[in-house]
Amino acid sequence: MNELKLALLGFGNAGRAFAEMLLEKQEEIRAVYGRDVLVTAISTASRGTIVNSEGIDLEKALRDIETKGIFGDDTPGLCSLSSLEVVEKADCHVVIEMTPLNIFTGQPAISHIKKAFSLNRHVITANKGPIAWAFDELEKEAKERGLCFYYETTVMDGTPVFNLVEHTLKFCKVTEISGILNSTTNYILEELAKGKPYDEILKAGKELGFIEADPAMDIEGYDAAAKVTALLNVLMKAGITPEQVDRKGIEGITAEDIKNAAERGKVIKLLCRGQLTDNGVKASVKPVEVDREDMLAAVDSTTSVVSITTDLMGKLSVIEHAPEIQQTAYGIFGDMIRVLDAEK
Amino acid sequence: MNELKLALLGFGNAGRAFAEMLLEKQEEIRAVYGRDVLVTAISTASRGTIVNSEGIDLEKALRDIETKGIFGDDTPGLCSLSSLEVVEKADCHVVIEMTPLNIFTGQPAISHIKKAFSLNRHVITANKGPIAWAFDELEKEAKERGLCFYYETTVMDGTPVFNLVEHTLKFCKVTEISGILNSTTNYILEELAKGKPYDEILKAGKELGFIEADPAMDIEGYDAAAKVTALLNVLMKAGITPEQVDRKGIEGITAEDIKNAAERGKVIKLLCRGQLTDNGVKASVKPVEVDREDMLAAVDSTTSVVSITTDLMGKLSVIEHAPEIQQTAYGIFGDMIRVLDAEK
Repeated sequence: MNELKLALLGFGNAGRAFAEMLLEKQEEIRAVYGRDVLVTAISTASRGTIVNSEGIDLEKALRDIETKGIFGDDTPGLCSLSSLEVVEKADCHVVIEMTPLNIFTGQPAISHIKKAFSLNRHVITANKGPIAWAFDELEKEAKERGLCFYYETTVMDGTPVFNLVEHTLKFCKVTEISGILNSTTNYILEELAKGKPYDEILKAGKELGFIEADPAMDIEGYDAAAKVTALLNVLMKAGITPEQVDRKGIEGITAEDIKNAAERGKVIKLLCRGQLTDNGVKASVKPVEVDREDMLAAVDSTTSVVSITTDLMGKLSVIEHAPEIQQTAYGIFGDMIRVLDAEK
Repeated sequence: MNELKLALLGFGNAGRAFAEMLLEKQEEIRAVYGRDVLVTAISTASRGTIVNSEGIDLEKALRDIETKGIFGDDTPGLCSLSSLEVVEKADCHVVIEMTPLNIFTGQPAISHIKKAFSLNRHVITANKGPIAWAFDELEKEAKERGLCFYYETTVMDGTPVFNLVEHTLKFCKVTEISGILNSTTNYILEELAKGKPYDEILKAGKELGFIEADPAMDIEGYDAAAKVTALLNVLMKAGITPEQVDRKGIEGITAEDIKNAAERGKVIKLLCRGQLTDNGVKASVKPVEVDREDMLAAVDSTTSVVSITTDLMGKLSVIEHAPEIQQTAYGIFGDMIRVLDAEK
């Protein structure tokens, strides 16, 4: 049996949900593609690293993390290689980049991907850093080597956005993109609208898992800026970095602002936008007032939306309703299926 | 140059917009696929019929219709063949079915498509009748003969719905579909909400082109039932006909109902639904009250939405905002591009 071997860089919530989906769908993949999918490496920063060209026992790895928080001492191939060393040493066809994001540089994910390409390995990334900071360079390298480079998960989880344009809107030229892409700010704005004080919202949000320990990346719009940059680099060949996004967060929005807006029939949302202009693609992230009757007003909490305008198909919107971690896993899984398709 | 030859059955607004798009994109298609696309036949009921294996002069055909309403006497290949005879006699690789819909039988479109398959021709249909009334049979025939059978335009114009699931949600099993798919009822309900009397709405809607001469098909939910049947037959292998849809139109909705709903923060919409149950797929078309804050409430006038729930990706919605005839043309155009892809 011809196998497809994967190296997973990172094994957090998304990586583990992907491993579970893989276990669940293994038989079906075999039936459709005649191939077994093996995970031959998993690297983590604090839970241990495994390299095993025979294929890692995913059920045991998942159980170990759940019960002990780390991979057990009895795991064949347990080692202390770094993620970069794993890319070099693992016996794999595909490197799946899921390491923590550095939103200001895209590293070390970019280095992992470059290394993978240099060894002629396909790459799937769930990490938006590389798409926001180094897309053109990475895409060029993949193309020259005839390698797959897929990144659907980087914006709106597994919701078809990049694949939507590539596979279902052929010959359409994207002229404008907008969207609500950051759920933390969505949540905070809604809670402010209910009259809750900022400090309490942050405290409760952290307890509920909606808000990160350091929420500045979300609140100040850096996360949204990275996402809109990724969208524009891929779909409009913008060739920009997040630094070129005209960015304003929601840190200055008060309960009073929201109340005033409501009195005028408006709702405040952190909106990402990109438009084709005579001077290239202009990108922004800004709190804006939208009509209460507008579709955007209905996009609340963890729900997100992207609207794509093209020359031939006008404006379409795709909404992802209240996703769970499984939707992130599907983004990676769907990209893996595309690798299987490409190798058919 | 290897040519792709098309026979167009029907040359109404959508057919003419498709011909214009083809003229506009001909060069680009040649650059990408190395093929010329020729229209070798156009059949109409009242504007004349042309069969010309050298390729019809589309610019002249469009100009003739615009200036004279019929194809000119000087058109090479002008004849009086029926659509079915055109399918038989035209020198073509692809038959594009765009004849008027009979919503109660799917005919004569089904016969046109069967004839095309029997002659080993690919089929693109913009006519939802065949998908609602005979999908399984037609799909089977196409598969057995290795022919393309594409029908993206039949629901929400060129908006990716069928292609969305097939190309971007691989391995996902559809468990539920819902949507607002009929713009006439959307328009009538909105005008009723403004306090206008039913008769005036119909009169004004007909003048504006929003409402057909005989609006019963829309108002009584037949059009929506055909659309939801098409969706369910393709995406959930429902194997049903529109007669099996639990159908209720908006003919019983009064301005009073709408006002009462509004007082409870609700909006009335004609909602299509299909769900997987233990007894197969259950389909309905019914006026329902949705929350004013719901995304569905924001889908007004000619805007439409379909929500698709799958096992792996939860619920996604796709919205087509206020489409024009070009979006219908793109549905046909995109399907034609898929034929070019399939023949690569």
